[in-house]
Amino acid sequence: MSKGENTRTAILDEALEMTSALGLEGLTIGELASRTGLSKSGLYAHFRSKEALQIAILGAASDRVAEKVVKPALKAPRGIPRIRALFENWIDWEAGEFEGSCPFVAAAADLDDRPGPVRDYFVERHGDLLDMFSRVAVTAIECGDFRDDVDPRQFAFELWGIQLAFQQYARLLEKPEARMLAQTAFDLLIAKSRPR
Amino acid sequence: MSKGENTRTAILDEALEMTSALGLEGLTIGELASRTGLSKSGLYAHFRSKEALQIAILGAASDRVAEKVVKPALKAPRGIPRIRALFENWIDWEAGEFEGSCPFVAAAADLDDRPGPVRDYFVERHGDLLDMFSRVAVTAIECGDFRDDVDPRQFAFELWGIQLAFQQYARLLEKPEARMLAQTAFDLLIAKSRPR
Repeated sequence: MSKGENTRTAILDEALEMTSALGLEGLTIGELASRTGLSKSGLYAHFRSKEALQIAILGAASDRVAEKVVKPALKAPRGIPRIRALFENWIDWEAGEFEGSCPFVAAAADLDDRPGPVRDYFVERHGDLLDMFSRVAVTAIECGDFRDDVDPRQFAFELWGIQLAFQQYARLLEKPEARMLAQTAFDLLIAKSRPR
Repeated sequence: MSKGENTRTAILDEALEMTSALGLEGLTIGELASRTGLSKSGLYAHFRSKEALQIAILGAASDRVAEKVVKPALKAPRGIPRIRALFENWIDWEAGEFEGSCPFVAAAADLDDRPGPVRDYFVERHGDLLDMFSRVAVTAIECGDFRDDVDPRQFAFELWGIQLAFQQYARLLEKPEARMLAQTAFDLLIAKSRPR
């Protein structure tokens, strides 16, 4: 990486931590500049607007999910083992990757009522994630781990609901049973998808 | 109601709409004052601090949920009909009560990394809601609609996950199939809880 790319990466790492704690709207250019030891104009040389920075943050969050959650899961055998790896990696990500919330979860609440390019970009990346959940279900059907009549979109919706509930129980409500409840819900979702 | 109470109610109605659109942290005293035609000091006569206002907003959101979601559902016969009414009232609430997000959902993201009395109050109200979901499951077990081995806390977790996923699919991702996916997930949750 060039020096410019290194700086950009370091800025985005710090920005991800800040988004996790403060949300996408709570992150200010001034505070990010001070934490990375850059001037505001130095920051604007990398990201020309707050919107461009927010889009870059969401891109960096997606890249990090790909690297920490998705890629390792794709090494597991297709079908249920791969889905299980994906679920467990995601739970670990939600629970431990950041001090605060997952930046996606933090951003979701900020963006749902704010139309514009940042929201559009987020919706696209979020759609990719749900499509990936659908695809692993399709693979599970193809290899006979799931029944033919499992609806992959329905499966993705229910898996995502478990993960959202886990995030809220663990982070907001601080319930010690969060992981156990999520694991049981996941096991029941898998059980009802298997051939009878 | 006294004039003071009427004013307080009118302020909180406006504050709920603003929280729905902007989140709990995005709501400023100045903007709320201007929208309600009061001076800032007039507002502070009703709520002595931003924290006190935020707690009052969450209280008003709880009261509104009780009135629009819970009370009408409790008129349905106990067991599955009551749970179905609760689910449907909640989906209607998420989908249509406010221009923006449900204020609880908007607040959740703001509060998960902000310790203090507002978060404590929110966690308590949120816990009441989940306890209520557990209680309707207990009633369903008692009247024979659900099996004895259904875990009410697990049921509440899964029901809540469906509602969170619905909210995100409908509001953020604007997926037209959100309600159908949520309805199917709910029907499957009920089906797996029934006596075999």
